[in-house]
Amino acid sequence: MWIKYNASVKCLFHFIDFSGYFNCLGKDGKVYDELKYVWLQGRQVWMYSRLYRTMERFHRPEILEAAKSGAAFLQKFARVQASGGPGKCAFCLTRDGRTVKVQRTIFSECFYVMAMDELSRITQDKEMQADAESMMDRLIFWVQTDSSDLGRPQLPGDPPINSMAVPMMLLCLVDQLTEGRTDVAEKYKDLSGWCVERILQHIQRDGKAILENVTLNGKELPGCQGRLQNPGHALEAGWFLLQYALKKGDVHLQKTAVDKFMEIPFHTGWDKQHGGLFYFLDVDGHCPTQLEWNMKLWWPHCEALIAYLMAYGHSREPVLLDRFKQIYNYTFTHFSDEEHGEWFGYLSRQGEVVLDFKGGPFKGFFHVPRCLYMCEKLLDSLLERQDS
Amino acid sequence: MWIKYNASVKCLFHFIDFSGYFNCLGKDGKVYDELKYVWLQGRQVWMYSRLYRTMERFHRPEILEAAKSGAAFLQKFARVQASGGPGKCAFCLTRDGRTVKVQRTIFSECFYVMAMDELSRITQDKEMQADAESMMDRLIFWVQTDSSDLGRPQLPGDPPINSMAVPMMLLCLVDQLTEGRTDVAEKYKDLSGWCVERILQHIQRDGKAILENVTLNGKELPGCQGRLQNPGHALEAGWFLLQYALKKGDVHLQKTAVDKFMEIPFHTGWDKQHGGLFYFLDVDGHCPTQLEWNMKLWWPHCEALIAYLMAYGHSREPVLLDRFKQIYNYTFTHFSDEEHGEWFGYLSRQGEVVLDFKGGPFKGFFHVPRCLYMCEKLLDSLLERQDS
Repeated sequence: MWIKYNASVKCLFHFIDFSGYFNCLGKDGKVYDELKYVWLQGRQVWMYSRLYRTMERFHRPEILEAAKSGAAFLQKFARVQASGGPGKCAFCLTRDGRTVKVQRTIFSECFYVMAMDELSRITQDKEMQADAESMMDRLIFWVQTDSSDLGRPQLPGDPPINSMAVPMMLLCLVDQLTEGRTDVAEKYKDLSGWCVERILQHIQRDGKAILENVTLNGKELPGCQGRLQNPGHALEAGWFLLQYALKKGDVHLQKTAVDKFMEIPFHTGWDKQHGGLFYFLDVDGHCPTQLEWNMKLWWPHCEALIAYLMAYGHSREPVLLDRFKQIYNYTFTHFSDEEHGEWFGYLSRQGEVVLDFKGGPFKGFFHVPRCLYMCEKLLDSLLERQDS
Repeated sequence: MWIKYNASVKCLFHFIDFSGYFNCLGKDGKVYDELKYVWLQGRQVWMYSRLYRTMERFHRPEILEAAKSGAAFLQKFARVQASGGPGKCAFCLTRDGRTVKVQRTIFSECFYVMAMDELSRITQDKEMQADAESMMDRLIFWVQTDSSDLGRPQLPGDPPINSMAVPMMLLCLVDQLTEGRTDVAEKYKDLSGWCVERILQHIQRDGKAILENVTLNGKELPGCQGRLQNPGHALEAGWFLLQYALKKGDVHLQKTAVDKFMEIPFHTGWDKQHGGLFYFLDVDGHCPTQLEWNMKLWWPHCEALIAYLMAYGHSREPVLLDRFKQIYNYTFTHFSDEEHGEWFGYLSRQGEVVLDFKGGPFKGFFHVPRCLYMCEKLLDSLLERQDS
């Protein structure tokens, strides 16, 4: 059975297109909008570089060249001169590098760090590595000390909150920057603990719910914002936490990662009627205000596959394998496009393709290849252990 | 037949709840989020006041009191002190009036003007009327002279564009402020012409398409933004233009309003398979990037009903009546809630209710009552003319 999964995962990799940096691609892969999204291009450079560096069959010169050209574009154009504090990156650029939009968040900058760090591991470019670390230090300053350079005014009715994306993202960055580097690991060791603590604050309602937004003290926020659940995001946090806990040998955190950040969102988020994971839910059963709440998006399913395969690989609990199979069956029968390759990103609740493009402002070269990459690694490891 | 339509419109009015100013109401009308949206509350005050002032059966003290209390809240809390230039209003406030969010657009301010002008017509409050006019003058300054106080930085890849919402909104405000006032009409007479010219720039592709965003010179913009169509918005512009052209006695503009801003979006936007108007479309047939593109929203249907009833009332062309009937049948069988009253706002492409709340951050007390109000007036007029 593992061989079957492994083969199908490998097979899907063939559909992946390494040719360019336009983020908006139609169902046939043709460019239909020339804007470039910094956060998506950063992810793409990271993924190309990671595949080149760690998987033999992707160790191909054209993939490295593509990664280098993407990184060069980002280094040349991503930083915003006109507005924001030092280091602020654009969200969106024209094809020739002019700034279109700047978000008052940290995510473009986070994927800039990912891209530069991963590529510099191949090229041994010390300046690029320093660029990544200096951006990381600025991110930490924005998150932990003073966010005013992000350009978002402090408003009396909008106190700072703990949004799950922020500690998740930083934990992911620490994992990236510290791989194989004990000195860097030492530098960021307190940060990992801080991120984990912040993520754990999202366990609410006597341990029975994961909420997307909480106060800085880990209390529930009022209204729709406070009641919001994002099952795919919680599952992604789940495997981030499990990976961290496995490295640390922290058995209690391993259990929390699976019981709270996988089992709860899976049970809450799975659509018993039509299958697949809902995008958003309200913990009290009200209707979320997001128009897309009941859609089935590709990325929560990618993250759920990684989460349950990692959890099963670790504990060998059969129930975790059942979850993986259930998500796998839905995902591989609904999202992948037999005709033109790649995955569709957006299905209706009933599982029909509603948006047929392969790349858009929020779908780049990231969740699908990272999922295939992680699953292949996990499956290889299961196959190895089966042999021995 | 007119009596039937008129009765059903009047009957639906009974479902309207005049009790409060919470914008987020569940399907049963209970508050499920206490945030207050300035643009929605402005619309609500306007609508309450308009109904009180112009329809005998709504000339009730509790409706006037509600309008006054809503306006008092806005005058006390809507203006942002901390950020933005003078006059900038918040987008969203806490229940006790603290600013939660400020949008870098003009729409909160527009509905502030609508509210204050309409209410001041009842109360004869000259200060309130002056408040409305002074905000209007600021809006004109932002739109025509210098928008930097809105807080949106000028970015090299994002030149100013002509987004249809802006001239539509200003045309609507001029109509509001000048009603029955020749001096004010004289003051804003150039502005109406400017708005109409800007709206007409959205006729593109040799007169065969209405595009939502164009350049300031009325040329097509590149990419998804340039190809975007919003049929409901075009239909709303259609009746704004027709109303203006009827007042002016401009026969050519009357024809343009119907042929271009009603017939084109109706033919483009109507879903031949499932009925109802799509929310967004791409003029080249690509998939829009908005996740909700194929949903059926209440407000485009409200605007389409007004547009075609106004167009038919004017020209008596049977085909325009057929369109009204078609939209009427879809709307009244899909959106109104027999059980709890009011209308649902958001249906799937197939016509099922996807979001079951009655009020949310983008659905307030406006499109439904304005549609019922306008249709009742138009139907009354048709009945009168039938009698005579």
